[in-house]
Amino acid sequence: MNKRDLYKNIKKKRSYLCVGLDSDLKKIPKHLLKYEDPIFEFNKIIIDATSDYVIAYKPNLAFYEYLGASGFNSLKKTLDYIPENIFKIADAKRGDIGNTSEMYAKTYFESLNFDAITLSPYMGYDSIQPYLKYKNKWVILLALTSNQGSKDFQKYNNFFLEVINKSKEWVSNQNLMYVVGANNEKDIIKIRNLVPNYFLLVPGIGAQGGSLENISKLGFTSDCGLLVNNSRNIIYADSSENFEIKINDKVKSIQVKMESLLKKYNLL
Amino acid sequence: MNKRDLYKNIKKKRSYLCVGLDSDLKKIPKHLLKYEDPIFEFNKIIIDATSDYVIAYKPNLAFYEYLGASGFNSLKKTLDYIPENIFKIADAKRGDIGNTSEMYAKTYFESLNFDAITLSPYMGYDSIQPYLKYKNKWVILLALTSNQGSKDFQKYNNFFLEVINKSKEWVSNQNLMYVVGANNEKDIIKIRNLVPNYFLLVPGIGAQGGSLENISKLGFTSDCGLLVNNSRNIIYADSSENFEIKINDKVKSIQVKMESLLKKYNLL
Repeated sequence: MNKRDLYKNIKKKRSYLCVGLDSDLKKIPKHLLKYEDPIFEFNKIIIDATSDYVIAYKPNLAFYEYLGASGFNSLKKTLDYIPENIFKIADAKRGDIGNTSEMYAKTYFESLNFDAITLSPYMGYDSIQPYLKYKNKWVILLALTSNQGSKDFQKYNNFFLEVINKSKEWVSNQNLMYVVGANNEKDIIKIRNLVPNYFLLVPGIGAQGGSLENISKLGFTSDCGLLVNNSRNIIYADSSENFEIKINDKVKSIQVKMESLLKKYNLL
Repeated sequence: MNKRDLYKNIKKKRSYLCVGLDSDLKKIPKHLLKYEDPIFEFNKIIIDATSDYVIAYKPNLAFYEYLGASGFNSLKKTLDYIPENIFKIADAKRGDIGNTSEMYAKTYFESLNFDAITLSPYMGYDSIQPYLKYKNKWVILLALTSNQGSKDFQKYNNFFLEVINKSKEWVSNQNLMYVVGANNEKDIIKIRNLVPNYFLLVPGIGAQGGSLENISKLGFTSDCGLLVNNSRNIIYADSSENFEIKINDKVKSIQVKMESLLKKYNLL
């Protein structure tokens, strides 16, 4: 998916919500465990309940790897089930030398047909380069994450700014986004100074203390420029037999807020 | 495996060689493709040909993920096949927030019974912490890698030294090693000043220009302190029907060199 189509979808759905599919056998509603593939069953219901209000889905690969061969199959079925025109992000946080990155790129961009993959910048340009030869596919580079540990290295001498400053020279805003935690409001201003037209994937709204209003105000660009992620708050909002009702209510209410923010900043 | 037993194995086998199992359907000898699981068949022959001379095996997970569910099964069978007392490293280069790292730790330390996993430091302490509750299991943190891109961020203001300096306060040398490329000879002196008693996992000998003699001279500690990795140079040394003969010759010759270096520095 290219940047123009991404914004087109945002305007059409009046939403910039990404839902994280961190699907965990221990946390999904118990009645699903009777199915042959409970993870896929869960994802299917989540997708049905949310796809009208969602711009992107982001399965975190750790949750599928944990289940071994069957997890891989659940992931593949889930990807096939996601409707056309929804952006699919492999939350992989990989980063490896060239020939290895090439294998990962083939796996996630070709075999599984993801639109984007999250990567760690630590190993530098040649660890990212193999992903860039795919047209309309995206690298989403970790810049400033929302966890406590972001202080250890990312914020050390504002290292995250160097990551952005260097990597934006390598890749245009048509193929590169950055992960920026919603709890880093002050830093978003610095980041927007460096990359006024790159999309940001923003975790950390809600549980981790970020405010949707503030992040939108600080992060919006002329084509929205934000994908705001929410995982556990949405997918585990309820565990009853009719859990899809509450989840549907939840994403609808987020979409309503997002619509009013998009309107407020003249983005519709 | 604990540090004492690791050194015990090194002394017994007179070797500090790690063999990377970057097993790729396109590169393995053609006659293996007739088997139901060619990757496992290849790994089995490599292990039989090398295990007497090898301290560690390091499957790079990208190569198994690429094959989807069947790749996972090949990996599992390979791990079960590796003889007791050989150190098993998951070359994963993961790095994620706490609850996700926990899933990875369970996958690689519990389900697959690896002894160690390579991790990226970028997300900080809480991305590493979940791996540390496993006794006799190891985190191998990327510090200074052997690829060209290591210049981009790792060497920027000697950032790799900060990674080592901070992380050594979190974890003792009983559970933490560092990845340090063999082509960074000058930097190994700086690293040994910071961590005189931590093991280093060293890629980059041979093809990438590192010298076994120099790296051993600069990196040895009182309990060896080095695992020197070699992947493609060994496992793809030959593609004939009897490829195991050349591979066996190759690891034997490396072991002989390593033995003479261990002797030279009084480590046997």
